[in-house]
Amino acid sequence: MGAGGAGGAGGMDAAIRVTVWNENVHDRRKDEVRAIYPNGIHEAIAAGIRTRLGDRAIVRTATLEQPAHGLTPETLADTDVLTWWGHTAHAEVSDDIVQAVHQRVLAGMGLLVLHSAHYSKIFRALMGTTCSLRWRVSDDREVVFTVAPSHPIAAGVPAAFVIPRQEMYGEFFDIPRPDDLVFISSYSGGEVLRSGLCYTRGRGRVFYLSPGHETYPVYHQPEIQLIIANAVRWAAGRDDATGGAAGGEPYKAIKSPTGWFENAAREG
Amino acid sequence: MGAGGAGGAGGMDAAIRVTVWNENVHDRRKDEVRAIYPNGIHEAIAAGIRTRLGDRAIVRTATLEQPAHGLTPETLADTDVLTWWGHTAHAEVSDDIVQAVHQRVLAGMGLLVLHSAHYSKIFRALMGTTCSLRWRVSDDREVVFTVAPSHPIAAGVPAAFVIPRQEMYGEFFDIPRPDDLVFISSYSGGEVLRSGLCYTRGRGRVFYLSPGHETYPVYHQPEIQLIIANAVRWAAGRDDATGGAAGGEPYKAIKSPTGWFENAAREG
Amino acid sequence: MGAGGAGGAGGMDAAIRVTVWNENVHDRRKDEVRAIYPNGIHEAIAAGIRTRLGDRAIVRTATLEQPAHGLTPETLADTDVLTWWGHTAHAEVSDDIVQAVHQRVLAGMGLLVLHSAHYSKIFRALMGTTCSLRWRVSDDREVVFTVAPSHPIAAGVPAAFVIPRQEMYGEFFDIPRPDDLVFISSYSGGEVLRSGLCYTRGRGRVFYLSPGHETYPVYHQPEIQLIIANAVRWAAGRDDATGGAAGGEPYKAIKSPTGWFENAAREG
Amino acid sequence: MGAGGAGGAGGMDAAIRVTVWNENVHDRRKDEVRAIYPNGIHEAIAAGIRTRLGDRAIVRTATLEQPAHGLTPETLADTDVLTWWGHTAHAEVSDDIVQAVHQRVLAGMGLLVLHSAHYSKIFRALMGTTCSLRWRVSDDREVVFTVAPSHPIAAGVPAAFVIPRQEMYGEFFDIPRPDDLVFISSYSGGEVLRSGLCYTRGRGRVFYLSPGHETYPVYHQPEIQLIIANAVRWAAGRDDATGGAAGGEPYKAIKSPTGWFENAAREG
Repeated sequence: MGAGGAGGAGGMDAAIRVTVWNENVHDRRKDEVRAIYPNGIHEAIAAGIRTRLGDRAIVRTATLEQPAHGLTPETLADTDVLTWWGHTAHAEVSDDIVQAVHQRVLAGMGLLVLHSAHYSKIFRALMGTTCSLRWRVSDDREVVFTVAPSHPIAAGVPAAFVIPRQEMYGEFFDIPRPDDLVFISSYSGGEVLRSGLCYTRGRGRVFYLSPGHETYPVYHQPEIQLIIANAVRWAAGRDDATGGAAGGEPYKAIKSPTGWFENAAREG
Repeated sequence: MGAGGAGGAGGMDAAIRVTVWNENVHDRRKDEVRAIYPNGIHEAIAAGIRTRLGDRAIVRTATLEQPAHGLTPETLADTDVLTWWGHTAHAEVSDDIVQAVHQRVLAGMGLLVLHSAHYSKIFRALMGTTCSLRWRVSDDREVVFTVAPSHPIAAGVPAAFVIPRQEMYGEFFDIPRPDDLVFISSYSGGEVLRSGLCYTRGRGRVFYLSPGHETYPVYHQPEIQLIIANAVRWAAGRDDATGGAAGGEPYKAIKSPTGWFENAAREG
Repeated sequence: MGAGGAGGAGGMDAAIRVTVWNENVHDRRKDEVRAIYPNGIHEAIAAGIRTRLGDRAIVRTATLEQPAHGLTPETLADTDVLTWWGHTAHAEVSDDIVQAVHQRVLAGMGLLVLHSAHYSKIFRALMGTTCSLRWRVSDDREVVFTVAPSHPIAAGVPAAFVIPRQEMYGEFFDIPRPDDLVFISSYSGGEVLRSGLCYTRGRGRVFYLSPGHETYPVYHQPEIQLIIANAVRWAAGRDDATGGAAGGEPYKAIKSPTGWFENAAREG
Repeated sequence: MGAGGAGGAGGMDAAIRVTVWNENVHDRRKDEVRAIYPNGIHEAIAAGIRTRLGDRAIVRTATLEQPAHGLTPETLADTDVLTWWGHTAHAEVSDDIVQAVHQRVLAGMGLLVLHSAHYSKIFRALMGTTCSLRWRVSDDREVVFTVAPSHPIAAGVPAAFVIPRQEMYGEFFDIPRPDDLVFISSYSGGEVLRSGLCYTRGRGRVFYLSPGHETYPVYHQPEIQLIIANAVRWAAGRDDATGGAAGGEPYKAIKSPTGWFENAAREG
């Protein structure tokens, strides 16, 4: 019997190792973005997680311009949950790094895909679709509605909350059907979006959250910080049979002789 | 912001109040059942939960022959998770009690539906279908396979495990599509069954687990005890926005003036 | 091999027998409703189906005030798809008729649940939840977005279309997770609703469509007529293994001896 | 209003253009395979579709050793549904062809992924996971159970049928959650597999069917031929808003000015 179940404690209590990744391009070049995120979007996201989760998380950041985009094999191996923000520089992300992140997700690392990262190489590789959507930059008001109040990511989140100004991201959003649809947003222009989406890919859990344009202080908003903190905990996967990211590998083909299950030992 | 989210502790740490219900008919009348479950199936299920969850659960039992079947309004109000075992006496369960349990599930109480309780009034009322299936009493070997290893109910559960002898319950199982399909069983006769199924109904979480015929020691088996303990924790719903069973009521129609969400306070 | 498959023609070509049911209360009493639906909402819905489906459907109507609410055993047995509109008189629908309709759905009859029938006895019995939602009468503009363009019910439906004035029906909508989420609506007040939902219950297919308040000419709108016509065809279930409504019965428990499947004949 | 809806006829009646692809390696090299499939597995699959669908399909074949693996841009553009069988030569399929097929699926072409093609480049690219599973070559008897009798692919398919000898493919199968789970198989060794799976990716429909090892006459079996014929019709997508493969392109980002939907014309 594995240690992960109801009878065991195991890694359930260890701090979640979070890496907050950001392409960090707008943040350095555009004054209007710097005014909102003086240390970069990544530092705002990291600060929100640190505030919300305290000792339950160890948070570091990584950015595109670093060697290996800050995502060396050592860093990935030491990451339970990766958050990903990118917009203008998706094409500059190395295919090798994308492949390494993909494998690490399949091995159990959680992944939070934020806002314009819907179009990132890693999200498209995990989804298998174009991940395209309708969009408009026009200071729409976004209202986020909780449509799965029983989901852990919705814990403490209001029935609805307002983001005063946001880029419009609307349907049709070309994604696979989510495992769980947690949030739906409306925009003052009238559009809607499935804006909070859960997927499982291999041993890893993936959450997409739509709000977060770089020219608005979305990541300073308490409700968004709460959702991200909840999602970090959910994506860490401490409560599942796969053991989360700790020591996992992607699933492999297993040649099994007849009767292999007579010995019920867990093979993973 | 509610207390249930990542930033709060709240009721997350309080012990889960579990009521184990059993029709307790075979248990008293049939020697072969008494030999396996001398104190009734309910006591075996309760003992397994107590052993697995320790201080994290407070477990009591209730049976059909008690006044109000042991499910008085006070008991239901004091129950976070109810487990239900019935087989031969479904018709003897009072419609009023079924209605009270139904409302309590919609208000947030978790429900574990065990084995032949697939045909109970309460499960059929929650599902809206016949819940009929194929069956045979013939000492089949059942093998249970985990097909959602990322689900909390699968935590620590092997990839497959054997129940040496079981009643056969096979497809087609006339149920709504589950929110999560966690286990699939095979039988030595060749049949299969979707045997571990999650649903959300209102604020409540419902889990159906197929293994558990009264003439076999299934509830003494460690893997089954682990699954039930995991399911109790999952069904308690401590990690969701609805606050689980504590103080919840079934959802109601809400007349909302334009702009109600401008004040993001949670209305539940 | 059954006649329903790719090799057969069978009942695929027979006209779909549709019964359009309406409580017909507002329609007779309120001038503003009569101005829009002079012959009742049922006649408008029926006319839309007749226009769209022509020879492919045989459409009749039934109303609350008729004997057996117009839903005698003979009529139900002769109905492939039933559409249901009710609002103010849900409580006046006989429990026996609800039970008969429920059994007929489980036996394969399709059911279209329209607008305020979300609160009808039959829909609540099929769903197992309160089916409550948020609402407001305030002449909101509704925009309906297609979020499952691959679904047959979306065939020919635009990416989005406007209903100029509608009652607001908003989240949280207390329903089981749909098998398919086809439409999401927004309202000018900012709310959203999962407004087009597919379920399977037993052998029957159920579709809920939110637009349709009695004081607006929604059922005269071409897009709504198209969706209803598509849904009638989908719900008729001519393309499935259950044979749709023709001759079906609700699923029953089947006692099966070991090896029953060696003879692959379909038992239904 | 588009031509695809209930009111129109459009392309619904045109023959489905099917291309049956096979790596065609075992078929040429192994006597035991040639004995069963003297003209290659592709010809057996094609013959089954031709027999079942008659005038409703135009079927051609393509194989790995042909230029562009027989999948030139012209052929793909002229294909509504592609079926894919591969086993030993997945690595020899050109990445460019995989990319072209992927784009064509996203543009609306249906794809049937057969047996060991679970490990093909195209299926893994569409799924985003390893698609690994448990396996054993040992002449297991497979029993296929229909668990979604309301699905069009199950039309006419028995509740269960036997494949006398098959390679064992068992859980855990590392795939995204399917949109629809149509079949579950058991093996005489006791394993189970989710063996008939539907996905939507972009405008395209994807169906995975597990039975079909090259050393057994599976594709000559009537039930398998029926399922494949049903799946061809389903995957052709003639009944959806995307128009199936005819003239479609993958979804693209759409920049939409406020109020774009006031003109309800379909933009696709």
